[in-house]
Amino acid sequence: MASEESKPILYNYFRSSASYRVRIALAWKGIDYEYREISLLTGTNESDEYLKVNPFGKVPAFVTKDGKVLVQSEAIMDYLEEIKPERPMLPKGAIHRAQVRAIVQAIACDIHPLQNLAVLKHVAGDDVEKRTEWANYWINKGFTGLETMLEQTAGTYCLGDHITMADMFLVPMVQNAHRWKVDMKPFPLITRINNTLLTLPEFKSAHPFNQPDCPDELKKNAP
Amino acid sequence: MASEESKPILYNYFRSSASYRVRIALAWKGIDYEYREISLLTGTNESDEYLKVNPFGKVPAFVTKDGKVLVQSEAIMDYLEEIKPERPMLPKGAIHRAQVRAIVQAIACDIHPLQNLAVLKHVAGDDVEKRTEWANYWINKGFTGLETMLEQTAGTYCLGDHITMADMFLVPMVQNAHRWKVDMKPFPLITRINNTLLTLPEFKSAHPFNQPDCPDELKKNAP
Repeated sequence: MASEESKPILYNYFRSSASYRVRIALAWKGIDYEYREISLLTGTNESDEYLKVNPFGKVPAFVTKDGKVLVQSEAIMDYLEEIKPERPMLPKGAIHRAQVRAIVQAIACDIHPLQNLAVLKHVAGDDVEKRTEWANYWINKGFTGLETMLEQTAGTYCLGDHITMADMFLVPMVQNAHRWKVDMKPFPLITRINNTLLTLPEFKSAHPFNQPDCPDELKKNAP
Repeated sequence: MASEESKPILYNYFRSSASYRVRIALAWKGIDYEYREISLLTGTNESDEYLKVNPFGKVPAFVTKDGKVLVQSEAIMDYLEEIKPERPMLPKGAIHRAQVRAIVQAIACDIHPLQNLAVLKHVAGDDVEKRTEWANYWINKGFTGLETMLEQTAGTYCLGDHITMADMFLVPMVQNAHRWKVDMKPFPLITRINNTLLTLPEFKSAHPFNQPDCPDELKKNAP
């Protein structure tokens, strides 16, 4: 399943925030990859062909140079950290690592799953108002805890002054919050860290609006 | 915040499957701890006092012997793995570790979050039929992917013949599936691995029905 040039492959979708996390990590580690679009909008993710790659029908899926398929964004990022430890995404010290993972998992397990596209479709069909209300409820609830947690851990970034995996989960989550028009005023720390991160080249290049499968009318809003 | 005898503390709830995962890991590693009940049923988790421990109002929270508070089950388990590497919960080899983490995160990020108590309350209030229908939909969807993934990785356990973190996430998830009366016939591999694990002392002692805050009428069904 490896490509001819033996680059790894990332099956992903421009707007998927789990895909966005892994794109940031790949940019951070300087790993070149082949971009393969799996549209969550048209349902390519549920096609028989893609289910052979990822039986969960989710993005992203990462195919290593020797053809091993890895799924789940954090698992992929931990793998990248192991095979390429330069520019670490996890800090030194078991407590600090646990704090980074706690932020990562608060986003990945508590906040994000409740406002992804499959859930919104199931809850609200095409009703944008209902989707917005649902997404706002869960993001607000999660960000309230996250803001408090960051008050204990943050420096310039989520944990002190070094970029970690937590920052790579934060930016895609805030992007979703903007999309659902969440009022960010109660979350000044999340907002400040996110704005700082968005100025960095690795976060810019990984942004949804800078991806090949992003519609042209959105591309002009790219950071 | 450490207890007088300097044992670590686990804030948890007998029925919470995230608590159950960490109880298995603590038993597996042979780490003694003080059990502190946080009732999700009466809402102790949202009390001002507990929100000072965990700003997300979730269980579990783990307090180390020197008073550091850690949250999120997988983050706590990774911490335990780092401070006590004996009886490893992660396999050797980056690909194998990524496979274990993928199973862990499929459960923790995709399946479990959609049928936890806070979500069921929000979706269905006290309507048991509606709760059951919702929980069944998401567990079925997730287990379909998980069964296929396990066909590629499983031996006696989720990954080959050694117990890993994936097994410690599987058993609590299946416990939830039983609670919501999910028909397990389409998932023979999940069922077989779960049944094998439930015979082991570490999984038995961590079982919800063996906890001090479990009501007596349930305790008699303990494995």
